[in-house]
Amino acid sequence: MHEILVETTRGGLPGQGEHVENRHAGSVAVVDASGRLVASAGDPDFVSFTRSTIKPFQALPFVLAGGPKRLGFGPRELALMCASHSAEPMHLAVVAGMLERAGASPARLQCGCHVPLRFAATGASPPPDERFTEVENNCSGKHAGFLAWCALHGAPMDGYLGFDHPLQRAIRERLSQACEVPDGAMRSGIDGCSAPNHAIPLRSLALGYARLGRGADGDGALAPALGELSAAMFAHPELVSGTGRQDLAIMRAAPGEWIAKAGADGVQAIAVRSAGLGIAVKITDGNARAAVTAAIAVLDALGLTSAVQREALAPLARPEIRNARGLRVGEARSVAVLNAPRSSP
Amino acid sequence: MHEILVETTRGGLPGQGEHVENRHAGSVAVVDASGRLVASAGDPDFVSFTRSTIKPFQALPFVLAGGPKRLGFGPRELALMCASHSAEPMHLAVVAGMLERAGASPARLQCGCHVPLRFAATGASPPPDERFTEVENNCSGKHAGFLAWCALHGAPMDGYLGFDHPLQRAIRERLSQACEVPDGAMRSGIDGCSAPNHAIPLRSLALGYARLGRGADGDGALAPALGELSAAMFAHPELVSGTGRQDLAIMRAAPGEWIAKAGADGVQAIAVRSAGLGIAVKITDGNARAAVTAAIAVLDALGLTSAVQREALAPLARPEIRNARGLRVGEARSVAVLNAPRSSP
Repeated sequence: MHEILVETTRGGLPGQGEHVENRHAGSVAVVDASGRLVASAGDPDFVSFTRSTIKPFQALPFVLAGGPKRLGFGPRELALMCASHSAEPMHLAVVAGMLERAGASPARLQCGCHVPLRFAATGASPPPDERFTEVENNCSGKHAGFLAWCALHGAPMDGYLGFDHPLQRAIRERLSQACEVPDGAMRSGIDGCSAPNHAIPLRSLALGYARLGRGADGDGALAPALGELSAAMFAHPELVSGTGRQDLAIMRAAPGEWIAKAGADGVQAIAVRSAGLGIAVKITDGNARAAVTAAIAVLDALGLTSAVQREALAPLARPEIRNARGLRVGEARSVAVLNAPRSSP
Repeated sequence: MHEILVETTRGGLPGQGEHVENRHAGSVAVVDASGRLVASAGDPDFVSFTRSTIKPFQALPFVLAGGPKRLGFGPRELALMCASHSAEPMHLAVVAGMLERAGASPARLQCGCHVPLRFAATGASPPPDERFTEVENNCSGKHAGFLAWCALHGAPMDGYLGFDHPLQRAIRERLSQACEVPDGAMRSGIDGCSAPNHAIPLRSLALGYARLGRGADGDGALAPALGELSAAMFAHPELVSGTGRQDLAIMRAAPGEWIAKAGADGVQAIAVRSAGLGIAVKITDGNARAAVTAAIAVLDALGLTSAVQREALAPLARPEIRNARGLRVGEARSVAVLNAPRSSP
């Protein structure tokens, strides 16, 4: 039920043409804030792990509990709660402050360690034998927010990632509410950062992003909280991702208008504020580059991009493939055809 | 026409089960040395770029010209001509000797530079700001062999990668002969190392590997040359790949019996000497891990693996997926079903 969304080519020899080498299948849902499916490709009901696209919804319990005012978390801290950050100094400083206000030492973080995203994003090599810390995990802001929720509620900080911990129960409740996840349509597993992650239909994820983009202008009990989070993401896209990152390039192409959030294994969500739309993409093979290429093609197909934006996003929409000598040997490109708008069932 | 060959799962939460997250589609051809299709999955006639699986056939013109004896290339040098090496000292020493005997300075190499494969294979970080040389390119042995062919034939070393250079014409002729590539079934583009690369039907690639595995015991004019190459690969699997590499693990599981050769973008070829079979796998999305998992599943399905070999290869056949804290969160596994043997058209 998936469709081929992106293909890559190989060529570059005079007179020999360019040939398709790889194909990436997946599905797309485009949904408005009322839940109406506006457009789709493949199977918009496909149940996909949300991975890091879930972060704004994982922050909802903290915001709904008045956490920002009670702990002095402003837009920077909320942006970090929604972030897959690059562990640049600007990110680490905010996370350190969040932990301090939550009364939690960095040793409380249970997200594990990985090579910080700033290296891949900038092409730099991590120093040999360097040991990275939990604070440098791209999810440390989310985890600091988790600990802050525990501090607010007097809940145990030990075991804050347990499926039955009150925080994780609250997250599932709010995710279900924000995305209108149907009963039985949620699947759960452990994420890269050890938090429970949830798989939901793409159209549900897109609905959540449509509402996130609408923010305080939207309907429903969650609108003010979603508005606090989207305002923070709009204000600090560099804190939500980092220097040289694809999400930052997308958000900078439409300041205050698009929220772009990637998830591992080929998930990409985009909120389009003025149009009141949410876009959710899953590449079935998990390819991250293809998910971005497909998502930008969806923005184009919906008529949401200007000529200036298309030019700014061309390196993501149609990335060149260069070889070890720097020769252009092919490209990646969208081949998705969005289905015509149809009414929601 | 591709089929889903491999899937990955995510789970790990008590009571929440394990759920499929990613799927990798592709095709498989298993062919005997006469060209008979023994088994398949997906579309065995799929035309796939061969990438580095082509290397033994790119070495044929040199061997057929008596290059080994004329230039003093033994099994080590022939193994390097077929290698995607890790640029370990053992590899670099052989390549240096090949260039010297070809009378070519390292500056002649037109393969470009990349971070040597030994880093990814061992998990080490390359030193920051280190500039790597062409000799460390995984294809430098192949290119040194290309230059050696030019030295033998008095052909220009400048432009040795040109589509119409006599070496590249000779390679196409021998590839076509070894793999019985039908007229018009070959597509060409520039490879990662800037050499012309050719896309051929998977069943043709599998035929070439069946003949490579049979070597001098096979039929046809190429058998002695293929035998020199396969003997070199059997003798020095560590030179064909490198420490910690998947191809090395596969070849060490069946010494003198299997030749395993990966190609970029999800291509995997295996020769099975005693059974006289060649296996060619292409994962359509280009995923390397999935190609290995699928290829080992094919060996299993054909009844070619012992219990000891299955245990040795389990980390490749069913690799665990671990997160930033080292928790097992899922696995990759083959879901391919090989079609029953059918007669060749």
